[in-house]
Amino acid sequence: MIATQSHQTDAQPVIIPARQGVAFRVAAGQKLKIINTHGSQVLDTWAFNAENMLDYMSMEHTRAINNRLFPAIGQRFVSCDFLPMLTVLEDSSPGVHDTLMCCCSLKSYQRLNYPGYHDNCRDNLHAALASADRKLPFTPGPLNLFMNFPISNNGDISRDPPVTKPGDYILFGVEMDLLMVISACPQDIQPVNGAGRQPTDAAYQRLN
Amino acid sequence: MIATQSHQTDAQPVIIPARQGVAFRVAAGQKLKIINTHGSQVLDTWAFNAENMLDYMSMEHTRAINNRLFPAIGQRFVSCDFLPMLTVLEDSSPGVHDTLMCCCSLKSYQRLNYPGYHDNCRDNLHAALASADRKLPFTPGPLNLFMNFPISNNGDISRDPPVTKPGDYILFGVEMDLLMVISACPQDIQPVNGAGRQPTDAAYQRLN
Repeated sequence: MIATQSHQTDAQPVIIPARQGVAFRVAAGQKLKIINTHGSQVLDTWAFNAENMLDYMSMEHTRAINNRLFPAIGQRFVSCDFLPMLTVLEDSSPGVHDTLMCCCSLKSYQRLNYPGYHDNCRDNLHAALASADRKLPFTPGPLNLFMNFPISNNGDISRDPPVTKPGDYILFGVEMDLLMVISACPQDIQPVNGAGRQPTDAAYQRLN
Repeated sequence: MIATQSHQTDAQPVIIPARQGVAFRVAAGQKLKIINTHGSQVLDTWAFNAENMLDYMSMEHTRAINNRLFPAIGQRFVSCDFLPMLTVLEDSSPGVHDTLMCCCSLKSYQRLNYPGYHDNCRDNLHAALASADRKLPFTPGPLNLFMNFPISNNGDISRDPPVTKPGDYILFGVEMDLLMVISACPQDIQPVNGAGRQPTDAAYQRLN
C-alpha cells in the first residue's frame, strides 16, 4: 500500500479496508482528507517524518504545544521533536476524537478473553510499516480519529460509540513529508466502532 | 546513581538533586516512596522492565487499563505490553498528578526563548539511563508526579503550580523488577514547580 511518489494525489478516495492498516506518503504542502465513510469507524492514525522514523507524531507533545486535549481548527499535530506535521484545517464531524488511549493489540483482546488471534491496530501498524520497508521497535501512542471516549470531571474515562455520521471527514494540511499509517480499528467486542460492533472500511484522499 | 543490587533498600530517603535525574533499580515485592521534600517539585518519572528496555511504563496503556486519567489508590501503572509495574498504595498529596504532557526538552526551552542550554528532563532521562549502561532511541511519555495541569470542560489545559505541601509522598508497590528514572524537573520559567519558579531537590526511598 506504500505510494512510491511522495507527491501523489488521489482522484478518488482510497479505501482503507475494514480491520486493516495502510501506509502511504504525503508531501509537505498537500492536504490529507480522512473520511469516515460509513459513519462509525475509528481510525488509529500515526505519522512519521519521512526522513526519520524516530521523529514520530506525538500526542503528548501535541497536547503540550496546543494546551488542549485535542487541537482546535488551525492548530497542529507535532512530532516528538516539536516539528509541525499536520494542521487541522476542517472537521465536518462533531470534533470528538481521542489522543489518550493506546491502540488495541493482541494483548487487549486477550484481556477481553478473546480466544486465539484477533486483528489489532498494533499489528496493523507494524505490518503497514513493513509494507513500506520501515521498522520501528515500539508503538507510539496513536491519534484515534472519531473515537468517543468521554472524560468525566473526576477523571473517569468511558467508551462510547462514535458520534459521527457517514461521510464525516477531517482535513489536514501537511506540514512536512510524512509516512502515514492508518488502521481501521478491528474492535468488535466493545462498541468503540459503533453500537453494532461492526468494523467497516474508511478512506483517505491526498489533495493538492 | 545506579544501584548494583536490585533488592537494595534505603534506610533514609535518597536525594534526587534539583534539576537532575537519577536511575536506580527496584525489585518486585518492594515498595517505592517518592517524596516531594520541599513541597512544589514536579518529578518526571519513568519505569522500565529491568529485563527489557522496550517494555516501558506507558501512560496510554495505564489510562486504558484503569479507564481513568490517573490511577486510583489500588490501581496500577502498566507497561506498553500491559504488564503490571507499579501499584498506587498511598498518596499523602491531594492526588493531583499528570499523565498527559511530554517531558521538557531543550526544544521546550528554545520555544520559551531561553538562550543557550537549559537543563531538561529529556536529557536527564537519557543521561540517567547512560549512567545505568542503558540506552533508548526515543523518550516515552512521562509520569509527571505532583504536576498540576488542570483540564477544563472544553479540553483546555492550564499550567498551575503544584498543590502539594512539603513532605507529601506517593507510595508504590513494585510489581516487577524495574529500572526507575526520576528527573527533578528544572522548569524555572513557567510556574510548573511552584509560583516561585525555584526547582528543588526531592527524594525516593526503597522499602521492603
